[in-house]
Amino acid sequence: MANPKKKIVKNVLGEKSLALHKKLGGKIRIEPAMLPKDRATLSLMYTPGVGAVSMAIAKNPKLARELTMKGRMVAVISDGSAVLGLGNIGALGALPVMEGKCAIFKSFADVDAVPIVLDTQDTEKIIETICMIAPAFGGINLEDFSAPRCFEIEEKLKARLSIPVMHDDQHGTAIVVLAGLINSAKVVGKELKKLHIVIVGAGAAGTAIAKLLLKAGIRDVVVLDRVGIIGREREGLPPHKQWLAENTNPRRAVGGTAEALAGADVVVGVSGPNILKAEDIALMNTKAIVFALANPTPEIMPDIARKGGAFIVATGRSDFPNQINNALVFPGVFRGALDNRIKSITDPMKLRTAEALASLVKKPSTDQIIPDIFDPRVSKTIATVIK
Amino acid sequence: MANPKKKIVKNVLGEKSLALHKKLGGKIRIEPAMLPKDRATLSLMYTPGVGAVSMAIAKNPKLARELTMKGRMVAVISDGSAVLGLGNIGALGALPVMEGKCAIFKSFADVDAVPIVLDTQDTEKIIETICMIAPAFGGINLEDFSAPRCFEIEEKLKARLSIPVMHDDQHGTAIVVLAGLINSAKVVGKELKKLHIVIVGAGAAGTAIAKLLLKAGIRDVVVLDRVGIIGREREGLPPHKQWLAENTNPRRAVGGTAEALAGADVVVGVSGPNILKAEDIALMNTKAIVFALANPTPEIMPDIARKGGAFIVATGRSDFPNQINNALVFPGVFRGALDNRIKSITDPMKLRTAEALASLVKKPSTDQIIPDIFDPRVSKTIATVIK
Repeated sequence: MANPKKKIVKNVLGEKSLALHKKLGGKIRIEPAMLPKDRATLSLMYTPGVGAVSMAIAKNPKLARELTMKGRMVAVISDGSAVLGLGNIGALGALPVMEGKCAIFKSFADVDAVPIVLDTQDTEKIIETICMIAPAFGGINLEDFSAPRCFEIEEKLKARLSIPVMHDDQHGTAIVVLAGLINSAKVVGKELKKLHIVIVGAGAAGTAIAKLLLKAGIRDVVVLDRVGIIGREREGLPPHKQWLAENTNPRRAVGGTAEALAGADVVVGVSGPNILKAEDIALMNTKAIVFALANPTPEIMPDIARKGGAFIVATGRSDFPNQINNALVFPGVFRGALDNRIKSITDPMKLRTAEALASLVKKPSTDQIIPDIFDPRVSKTIATVIK
Repeated sequence: MANPKKKIVKNVLGEKSLALHKKLGGKIRIEPAMLPKDRATLSLMYTPGVGAVSMAIAKNPKLARELTMKGRMVAVISDGSAVLGLGNIGALGALPVMEGKCAIFKSFADVDAVPIVLDTQDTEKIIETICMIAPAFGGINLEDFSAPRCFEIEEKLKARLSIPVMHDDQHGTAIVVLAGLINSAKVVGKELKKLHIVIVGAGAAGTAIAKLLLKAGIRDVVVLDRVGIIGREREGLPPHKQWLAENTNPRRAVGGTAEALAGADVVVGVSGPNILKAEDIALMNTKAIVFALANPTPEIMPDIARKGGAFIVATGRSDFPNQINNALVFPGVFRGALDNRIKSITDPMKLRTAEALASLVKKPSTDQIIPDIFDPRVSKTIATVIK
């Protein structure tokens, strides 16, 4: 599968990105909403005038939403344990990705977001740290935490905090996949709820996708991990896979990729590069839908998927049609969460978000199942349903 | 001492500040250094291009200084336990003050600073939390932590972290006081090292001032707390006051304010409003120097201090001459710390900072012992000596 030309293209992009980062010196700046440029302004922005603001908030903490950054600021937090497809590269390695996310937050939805990377990968310490720094923020976007720790971290934070906490690798991905499936079903003329769907990968994204598809009323969902199909006969599964074993795979399929894909309408890859072949796709039902979302190298390249008979192909990349990317979702979700002062992002909100996102494509086609990430309607539309 | 007119003036300022904060909706914004406005830019700022940046940093963490926000970003952290003169008003109450500091950081020294307020006042939890979130930052500015916890928190953080940590209430205040004294000594024609100095208040600021004055070679320093002069005969003192008992008060003075001030050249108030009277100042040596730094209401109002015979009066306020304010110091100190990638702010740096700050006033006079906080030379000059 080696493709020297691709390799060179990729390195050129990396070199260009390194040069840009060196020139910028980090991608995030802090700007005062007003410059304390004279004595009168300074005395209102800082001591002594600010004392009245502090006292007002101390008496009524709810005022922090309108008088401080809490009403507009999201923390983008990672421990660097599962960064992109690069694996566990630690806090500082994760920082450029978190800064990129913060730039997207601002650019796409006017959300102020600050990156925080953690010098620990201990679940309890992560939870404790995030709770301790939460007061100044109106929301917490968790990013690139590895499974299965990510499930416990998010659950416990949701229970302890009264601001929305969302692990984007789970829910951002699940929402955008569901949106893509809603429109794909229309294109292939099949009923969404009756699709047979195979998810390759049982990590953060795969697990969350399976859960959201079930919430959307889709019944035939089969999840594969490295061992094979997850089902009730599997033993010694960690809790999230045990949940999948009990709640997916209604036809009790057993085996590996071939057994799972036989007759399937959809395959959603959220695993690793180049693990699917044209022959695998050929096992699927007619008008097969292939979402190969591993980044930067998908589970199968679009041209190969089509050779295998795929009717619709989507990837996470910007250089192919149908880019299934979380950036379609997270800016608008937090924009809405801040605007509407919600305390938690619920399943009905996620379903409404997927519907809203899908609805922006008026006439879905094989090459347009999802809006363009630069479509300015995306974040605004999503924000209205997060309530 | 009630002055209804002053009271009304103060409330008007508070009302104006509240209205401004409501209008701004918080004082801090996050701005991308570049907007990911098209596909090509996005692919360099975020995935896939950013992967090369993450990998480069994972291999060589030192690159984070030039490729991420770490090289330019300071965290301004508080637990809200001692906010201005308002006391323990908690994390959210502290937030408007921290935002104001961040605005000053940017405006005065082009330092990007982000406020973090902590949902705990437990010393160990504070230390642990700050260590956990430290990786993304090039420096930590601690603010409004109450004594004596502030000493342990700063010391332990300095020991654990390899980025500069400075509790501004201690060291920012100590540096600006020393700078003011250097010039005041010139104005009154007395030798700095031979000044008899009384510090009223043995909290964070008072303790740090005493230590820095001793480092500057001043020998006769006497510190007062609410009980009276701190000396070796005092029993059951907490560690920081025990240190003061052993290292200050060389003439073994005992008693209260009157005994301390008798014949003193300087009184530095870092305690509370209106605790000094004209009669107290009258006990001092000729050409008495009075720094009444409690905010917003000083230990003694300048007109009353002059009635008592003060020759030079300084306060923390912007509406009187000689404003002794930390904002003269912290922006430049962290600007220099970032520029020169220093790992710790040392005593020699603090002494050089005070000298550099004092030197900016070419001809010190009773009404000009310290540069104006809007003097653009201040931060630039200080930054050059933090190395």
